[in-house]
Amino acid sequence: MGHLTQIQLVRPGKFNSLQLVNAATAKAPQKGEVVIKVRFSGLNFADIMMRLGLYPDAPSAPFCPGYEVSGEIIEVSSHESRDLQVGDLVMAGCYFGGQASHVTVPSWQVQKLAPAFDLKLAAALPVSGLTCDLALGQLARVRTQDSVMIDCGSGALGSLMISYLLHLGCKEVIGLTSNKDKLSTIEARGAKAMLVEQWQHQNSIKVDVIINSRGGKSLGHDQDKLRPLGRIIALGASHMVAKGRLSYFNVLKEFLAMKKVSFIDLMHANQGVMGLNVLRLFEKPELLIESLQNVAGLAAQGVLIPQVDKVFKASEVEAAYDYLGQGQSRGKVLLEWEDL
Amino acid sequence: MGHLTQIQLVRPGKFNSLQLVNAATAKAPQKGEVVIKVRFSGLNFADIMMRLGLYPDAPSAPFCPGYEVSGEIIEVSSHESRDLQVGDLVMAGCYFGGQASHVTVPSWQVQKLAPAFDLKLAAALPVSGLTCDLALGQLARVRTQDSVMIDCGSGALGSLMISYLLHLGCKEVIGLTSNKDKLSTIEARGAKAMLVEQWQHQNSIKVDVIINSRGGKSLGHDQDKLRPLGRIIALGASHMVAKGRLSYFNVLKEFLAMKKVSFIDLMHANQGVMGLNVLRLFEKPELLIESLQNVAGLAAQGVLIPQVDKVFKASEVEAAYDYLGQGQSRGKVLLEWEDL
Repeated sequence: MGHLTQIQLVRPGKFNSLQLVNAATAKAPQKGEVVIKVRFSGLNFADIMMRLGLYPDAPSAPFCPGYEVSGEIIEVSSHESRDLQVGDLVMAGCYFGGQASHVTVPSWQVQKLAPAFDLKLAAALPVSGLTCDLALGQLARVRTQDSVMIDCGSGALGSLMISYLLHLGCKEVIGLTSNKDKLSTIEARGAKAMLVEQWQHQNSIKVDVIINSRGGKSLGHDQDKLRPLGRIIALGASHMVAKGRLSYFNVLKEFLAMKKVSFIDLMHANQGVMGLNVLRLFEKPELLIESLQNVAGLAAQGVLIPQVDKVFKASEVEAAYDYLGQGQSRGKVLLEWEDL
Repeated sequence: MGHLTQIQLVRPGKFNSLQLVNAATAKAPQKGEVVIKVRFSGLNFADIMMRLGLYPDAPSAPFCPGYEVSGEIIEVSSHESRDLQVGDLVMAGCYFGGQASHVTVPSWQVQKLAPAFDLKLAAALPVSGLTCDLALGQLARVRTQDSVMIDCGSGALGSLMISYLLHLGCKEVIGLTSNKDKLSTIEARGAKAMLVEQWQHQNSIKVDVIINSRGGKSLGHDQDKLRPLGRIIALGASHMVAKGRLSYFNVLKEFLAMKKVSFIDLMHANQGVMGLNVLRLFEKPELLIESLQNVAGLAAQGVLIPQVDKVFKASEVEAAYDYLGQGQSRGKVLLEWEDL
């Protein structure tokens, strides 16, 4: 089965929090599971939060983080029911444990790739793809006539969302960034680009759908920019992190500003507020299976266009986390497991 | 133009609060307005709340209540732009003032009826029809595969919503009532009927969309019965009224129980909460025009099936309010203006 190497988060909130560790061998597949020899592991903002000790759903340290991989199936349980075979190239969502040379996961978390689908792009799909499909397609239920604002326009999720919305034919798609240099990245993807500050200080543009990943008091500000019958979808709280390091001042400030919403205010404004946490849906396999199939199909058709920004060797994991955490990326940041 | 007679709400919260008053003549139409000789005026739950002095958006007394009428156009301003003519049979939404023998309203609030469309049914359409279209079609964006619970299954709104959802092909439609005798009314409309108490005490049925008009603490209870990616739409606070009379105990209890929702809880639950107040949309003519056209079209096709329960003479207005307020109705309650 091969030697298992994995990233471990050993000291959340401290320096040198991540280590590359050699374990014994990969876990043998139980009923309904498969073993994937990983080629690429994706990094996500939740990993950054976890490294800072800020993520409530994290296991206790030390543990192996990681939500998504691409690679090749090298072992299949005899009870596996989804027609996966040794040698299949796949992507998979992981409930932790994805930043490793091998992962052993239930087959329902695995999606076979279309022929010749690039493994780098595949590793950029599970988390952002599920988030895109679930937030825009299933929660907001975006329609052609909608105007949509995405506050994470320059990153991996932004690239998928913008391609999805443009394909749907939405009449206006606005992407935000807090970094002037990234405005051109958003424009190159086909959306209207704005700085976060510009968006916050303008009152002339209102939209039907807002994707908010900044959290904190930005949720209340964004609500004011919804049209009647509009909806805002909260994805996270990226504002709690300043330049990739934990800012207790920011955490406190944002926590205190985290507005609660009253039904009476929602009625007065004729609005909706929604929240998405894909991790919590791992209890609902049927929803995730359907969505992951959807994502694979849309990506194969070119409706979802993933952007990979930078690939780090697995041994450079600290540098990879720093790069994503400090807001330098313009797409997915991956770890590569080289011996495949 | 004829003599104007109107209902006036003179003493909200007191006995004998409503009077039938003879005014001078109907208001002459200003630019873009028309005058309708009213045949039927609809009663709504908001009228009941207003009579009890419980409705924050009510004008100061005395004023003429009423949100909807059907009747015949008897005068048209020369600036009217929507191709309405004297003699047209129409329905109209009113921003107050609809419980009168004549109404003078902007033409955008008026919708010409399909040929031979019953004027009784037409008076049952504007408020419930707009609410149905805006809550289910525009806010919740209901889809075929959804299961839906409507907590006001036996009333005027319930009849429209159930017919709309069954026509859409929703896989499960549940209607609630607090009155055993009305279970058969809901079943006759084609939905599954449940008592409010049964619904609250069961945990096996979860749905994708909930229409909540009870308000107060029922909102929190209903949220627990949403599937992941589900949504609840708040329409009002009918629970504040007990048997048609103001219960200060209920108001206080429900107010204290009116849960606020945090974005963090919404993310954990993967849910959405939404609110609708059609009155507040009178500032957005384009939304209401489109929706009212939609409603008229769907009603003409038999997709929206209004139910009229009882017609009172305008002079019996106190009895009409009592009948609706005490929860006796199984459809729309109308006032008839007889001299048409």
